[in-house]
Amino acid sequence: MADGLVLMRTEVAIIGAGPSGLLLAHLLARRGVESVVLETRSQAYVSGRIRAGILEQSTVDLLDEAGLGTRLRAEGYPHRGVYLQWPGERHHLDFVDLTGRSVWVYGQTEVQKDLTEVAGDRAVYEVSDTALHDIEGDQPYVTYTDAGGTGRRLDADVIVGCDGSFGPSRDAVPAAVRRTWEKSYPYSWLGILADVAPSTDELIYAWHPRGFALHSMRSPTVSRLYLQVPNGTDVAQWPDDRVWAELATRLGDGADGWTLTPGPVTEKSVLPMRSFVQAPMRHGRLFLAGDAAHIVPPTGAKGLNLAVADVGLLAPALVALLRDKDPALADRYGEDALRRVWRCTHFSWWMTTMLHTSEDPFEAQLQLAQLRSVVSSRAGATALAENYAGLPIGR
Amino acid sequence: MADGLVLMRTEVAIIGAGPSGLLLAHLLARRGVESVVLETRSQAYVSGRIRAGILEQSTVDLLDEAGLGTRLRAEGYPHRGVYLQWPGERHHLDFVDLTGRSVWVYGQTEVQKDLTEVAGDRAVYEVSDTALHDIEGDQPYVTYTDAGGTGRRLDADVIVGCDGSFGPSRDAVPAAVRRTWEKSYPYSWLGILADVAPSTDELIYAWHPRGFALHSMRSPTVSRLYLQVPNGTDVAQWPDDRVWAELATRLGDGADGWTLTPGPVTEKSVLPMRSFVQAPMRHGRLFLAGDAAHIVPPTGAKGLNLAVADVGLLAPALVALLRDKDPALADRYGEDALRRVWRCTHFSWWMTTMLHTSEDPFEAQLQLAQLRSVVSSRAGATALAENYAGLPIGR
Repeated sequence: MADGLVLMRTEVAIIGAGPSGLLLAHLLARRGVESVVLETRSQAYVSGRIRAGILEQSTVDLLDEAGLGTRLRAEGYPHRGVYLQWPGERHHLDFVDLTGRSVWVYGQTEVQKDLTEVAGDRAVYEVSDTALHDIEGDQPYVTYTDAGGTGRRLDADVIVGCDGSFGPSRDAVPAAVRRTWEKSYPYSWLGILADVAPSTDELIYAWHPRGFALHSMRSPTVSRLYLQVPNGTDVAQWPDDRVWAELATRLGDGADGWTLTPGPVTEKSVLPMRSFVQAPMRHGRLFLAGDAAHIVPPTGAKGLNLAVADVGLLAPALVALLRDKDPALADRYGEDALRRVWRCTHFSWWMTTMLHTSEDPFEAQLQLAQLRSVVSSRAGATALAENYAGLPIGR
Repeated sequence: MADGLVLMRTEVAIIGAGPSGLLLAHLLARRGVESVVLETRSQAYVSGRIRAGILEQSTVDLLDEAGLGTRLRAEGYPHRGVYLQWPGERHHLDFVDLTGRSVWVYGQTEVQKDLTEVAGDRAVYEVSDTALHDIEGDQPYVTYTDAGGTGRRLDADVIVGCDGSFGPSRDAVPAAVRRTWEKSYPYSWLGILADVAPSTDELIYAWHPRGFALHSMRSPTVSRLYLQVPNGTDVAQWPDDRVWAELATRLGDGADGWTLTPGPVTEKSVLPMRSFVQAPMRHGRLFLAGDAAHIVPPTGAKGLNLAVADVGLLAPALVALLRDKDPALADRYGEDALRRVWRCTHFSWWMTTMLHTSEDPFEAQLQLAQLRSVVSSRAGATALAENYAGLPIGR
């Protein structure tokens, strides 16, 4: 009990029990590498929070390979593509036809449930005071206080920060070597979950002079819908009737016989939109994955998929480093991961700025010209589809 | 001599003897429709001004069909594509391979020369006080003072404004029906003409942290090069040596054995960059074509090609209207032309904002991510190539 702390040891100390932390722990365990996952929130909180709902092909492939695809295949919904629309026109982009790849509707909450089931006691919840130490040395460690109030020290060969924007890992990279890039957007999303059958078979991305709208879904009985709203919007200003009326207008209720069916709203919240990238994603014995290293706005559904892609690169790199003493993949991890991060950061920015309206009438015409080009040029449609359905991990 | 003016009559009064005005007059004449072209500048000035140098496939096809392709075919230079580069990487995009279409290097001055030759006395130069009248009625007319000081009135069935940004046609559309869209860019181009063999076989579009650079050419002995500079730049700040040194840096002189060969500079000027669109492009008996209705920034070389595309639509529309009394094409002209105008306006904006650097480091990473995507995805490369080599006119 040096420093009065209870000592523990593992091979990989993972900070954060969201999808990237738990998936990494699982992939490592399958290759015989030991890890401990430290999470500040409760298991119920982490499992319950509502996040992304679209898995790209590579994510599904990786979950399949990791033996986590059974429920996804049984209960998830494969989508061939999405609809892009603006007033008077709705176009279907068929990703399977364009790229041979598709996407799946399967909520992050479901992925989290699957991961929690296989995590067992590797995941430790409700810890506090988490701090990273000696990441530039050979013997890094994490200190924290467990749920029972006991101070602990976890020694490890490497530490992986999967603790998102607000965790300590990101800032553990010394300021002198850290570079960050950031952009805020002048709008937010008002999102609702509703107990009603989706009014569409696949997602509808709608450009509208009044603002962007998105019709997504979780299941045949649960719809997820979003409205572009100004930053600082208070959900109290948006009673359910107003939300449904605005969605109906922007999604084109009544056009070509299509109607939006409203239903009981079970959740309502405002999501700010931000792009953020931090490099390097590896410094000494610390590796960053997922939101700890990058945030994308939700348009285009890249956030969760990008986190999974990070882990898909990192797991084999750590296995090679710790089992075979081969540092090659670990040394390349930062660079390899960042290539995809910037691709997805660009795509998310592009989808966002193409679909969210501003006060500038020239901008609106550019957006419509871009949308028309995407649906009328096979090359344009394919470029969108390649990004949306996702590149294979490692590309 | 009503109102003391000498009266004349023609079928189509064309204002402006740039490429769109003279090409329209020529296409109409081939179908037996009479026109007069009124130009405020001298013939020497119009023929001498240095402008665009890249003709897209549709422009070449149209000039061929109009019997104007002989010298172009003999003295122009077909290019299969362009180079896109950023520090450390240069990639060739082969438009022929990607789209089956190519571009030609043949200066606007040469097109103007060819058009002047066939224009004969249809074109009247050095007129002043040009004014449009009664465009909403059945008997529109133009008044002007000729080079000799005689006041004249030219009656016509229709008037076509090919008089660019500063001519009177654009403003002759009543303010109540006129809509305009506009964007200024926070940078300009410093362009030089130099009597030196190009250091490249095809154009090089170069992204560089210090700013965009473009290596273009006019012939095997004349190079045309551009540097992104701040708005308000005075050419006096840019002696030839400084221009060549900056071009060498931005274009990557010394990288992979490539060198930039400097030579005597014969022309140097600063070009502002602007996007502008005015609609409708037809009001009553007035039709607008080329710069009178739209301006694009030069990145992507759309300006001249867009003017030719307008004329390619307008000539058959006016022949049908005046010879066959069939107004269908003329009635659709505005809408048909604007579709391409917005496509090219978007493309020019996209090329410009992808390649010109700003102070924002996030923006720089987005640009590099976009460039990498264009050169690594066949769909991305094809989308650029389709726009650069140009859609068939009428599409």
